[in-house]
Order: sequence, then C-alpha cells, then structure tokens
Amino acid sequence: MGLEGEQVHQSGSGWSPVYVEDNLAVMSIGFLLSSPDDAVIWRGPKKNGMIKQFLRDVDWGEVDYLIVDTPPGTSDEHLSIVQYLSGAGIDGAVIITTPQEVSLQDVRKEIRFCNKVKLPIIGVIENMSGFVCPKCKNTSQIFPPTTGGAQRMCEELNLPLLGRVPLDPRIGKSCDEGKSFLTEVPESPAAVAYHSIVQKIRDYCSSHSASDDPC
Amino acid sequence: MGLEGEQVHQSGSGWSPVYVEDNLAVMSIGFLLSSPDDAVIWRGPKKNGMIKQFLRDVDWGEVDYLIVDTPPGTSDEHLSIVQYLSGAGIDGAVIITTPQEVSLQDVRKEIRFCNKVKLPIIGVIENMSGFVCPKCKNTSQIFPPTTGGAQRMCEELNLPLLGRVPLDPRIGKSCDEGKSFLTEVPESPAAVAYHSIVQKIRDYCSSHSASDDPC
Repeated sequence: MGLEGEQVHQSGSGWSPVYVEDNLAVMSIGFLLSSPDDAVIWRGPKKNGMIKQFLRDVDWGEVDYLIVDTPPGTSDEHLSIVQYLSGAGIDGAVIITTPQEVSLQDVRKEIRFCNKVKLPIIGVIENMSGFVCPKCKNTSQIFPPTTGGAQRMCEELNLPLLGRVPLDPRIGKSCDEGKSFLTEVPESPAAVAYHSIVQKIRDYCSSHSASDDPC
Repeated sequence: MGLEGEQVHQSGSGWSPVYVEDNLAVMSIGFLLSSPDDAVIWRGPKKNGMIKQFLRDVDWGEVDYLIVDTPPGTSDEHLSIVQYLSGAGIDGAVIITTPQEVSLQDVRKEIRFCNKVKLPIIGVIENMSGFVCPKCKNTSQIFPPTTGGAQRMCEELNLPLLGRVPLDPRIGKSCDEGKSFLTEVPESPAAVAYHSIVQKIRDYCSSHSASDDPC
C-alpha cells in the first residue's frame, strides 16, 4: 500500500485510518509502532484487544466494504474477528491457497474452521498459479497442483473457485514500491485475473446483502 | 514428510514420535487429529499447553538436533518455545525470508524479536530466490529483491546469510509426494544449496555447543 512510516491520527470520533486514495482507507498495527522494524510481541489476549479497538475505535465512516486480512491459521485472530463481528453479519470469507497439496491441506482446515463457526465462504482463489517465462513464453507450474489444485478441492467441497492468479515478478515489484499493480500493468494476465475475481466478490456481496449494509 | 494419517503411540515413557527414518523423528499436532481436515481451533493458552506437552511428554530419546518449525510472527508460539527451552540453551534461530522488501519488513521484526528475547541467530536463508526456466534456461527473479534481498539485510544487520534456495517445481512435487527432494534430485542447484546451508548450521552448532548437549 506504500504506507510505511504513516501515523494514525486521533480525532474526537476515534482513530482516523490512513487514506491511500479517497475511497481506500487502511488501519494497521504498523502505524502505531515507533520504528518500522519494531516487533509486536503479544500473546493472544493483547492481539484480541487490538482487533476489538480496530473495529470499535476507528472512525471508518461509511464503507461499502470492510476487508480484514488475517494471518494463516485458525486461532485467536480468526476467532476474535468472527466473534466481534457476529452481530454485523459478515458476508463471508475469501480463502487463498497455492496449488500444491501441502497448501491445500492447510486450506481444508481453514474451510473446516469457517464451517464450524458458520462463516459463509465467498470462494477460493488460487495464487502463484503457474509462471510464463518472459523470454520463451513457456509455462512452468512452479508449485505443481499434484492433486488437482484449488479447482479439484473446490469441486470436492462444492465451493466456487473465484480465479487463479499467475506468478508475475511485477506483482512483487509493485508491492515493494507501494504502487498499484492493476494500474502499473493493467493488461497483464494477473491483472485480468484480479479484476475478474473482484467482480465475482462484488456480485456475491450484492446478491447476499439483506440491506444496503456494508459488505 | 509423507506422514499424513500417522498416529502417535503412547508408551510408559510418554508419547512416541513418528519415525520417518531411523534418525529422524517427528511430532505434530496433525498426528492427534481424527481427520486430516480437522482444524485446531485453539487460542493461545491451549497452543502453549500443547507446545509444553510436545517438549516434556514426548519420548524424544537421545537427539543431536531438535528443530522447531514455527509459524510466522512474534506471538504465543515464539514466546512459549523460547520460555520453555530457556534452561536448555537454544543454539539459535534460523530465519527464512523471500527476496522482496515486503517479506524483509516482516523478517526484520522477527530478528528484532530474537534480539529482545536474547535468542542467538544462526543465520538467514533466502528462499524462492530466482527461477531458471526449464526450457530456455533464462533466470527470472519472480520475487524481485528490490532492496537488495536477504544479502543486503544481512550486511546491514551483521548476520550470516546461510544461502539462497532457488524455486524448483520438483521441491513442491517431492513435498506433496512425501519424498526427500535431496534424494530425488540430488544434483539440482536447490539440493546443492540445501546441503551447503545444513553444513553451515552444523558448523555453527558444533562451534557454539558448550558440551555434547543436543543442539
């Protein structure tokens, strides 16, 4: 997001998030640290307290979408988010995987978690899905889908596959430079995949929202 | 490790780990689940209890090395491991990164954590470090080291760079099949990098061990 070194401001209505663009605001624990290399050495309860503050004390204003990017796993962060937002009616979870079976094994646990806590699943995205050599245009499956990848898992578990994002060095470069990959390389296969995925998520949210509540 | 579906056995001297080979034993929470897709939905205190049990109640026998593979972050798992093993004299941490600045930002926090809890750092490994197209032999930096990668970070922080492991589809394939990549493709650049890294870690441990205690 290109927001390293940004600080959060306190106002009468709470913490103000940091605006990347007029319609994109971000909140991160990174904004509260005195140095960018500071480690946040916290056990679960303190993390849960901060998650609650981010939801309750940040002046988000009117939002169309609130996206929470969680770490991998099925522990404090995931339980707390689901619990604290239970009254708000979460539209659902977007699950990200890579194509190998070792990743799918973890992702199946994540899906089981969603089922247990009754969190709807909007769909699954397969990331790092093949790489086209920029010189000879040969496609390599760098993380081979030895058991059929996300597609087969989605078929088995009856979940929508939202799309596949191929590996592209320009993604990492854009991230490092804090630029939007979609603006930098709009015609790339990965950018086309992103757009298609976002459209599917928007369609899901508008068809599942009971009212005009934020998704 | 090819151990999916394995179970732990209880003996008079505690839980027996699962043996991959005569000289390689593994303990994992996966061995205690009734289904491989079961999610372990635990908050910090339960995770900490299990880590303690894995260290105290498993009949490890005589070991040369005890390797703990932690998730990313600086939270319960990391604090508990350091705390529970404080009397044992941990030789040190091996830090893994990928080449991009967004990864190095997280890894610098991990290094700061090690410094704070006085955990020595054996060195840093750069993973996913370039990809050679199998067809045209062109090298792509799929995760470009826009700020100099692990090498520059190690120079700045005065840490040893243990090595760089390139991307190779045969790594993922071996992992998915539960086979040893080093046995499957022993001459590959990634296998050579692994061997060199392991040798450096062994050298570090033998030069830093005060006694013949396990590393």
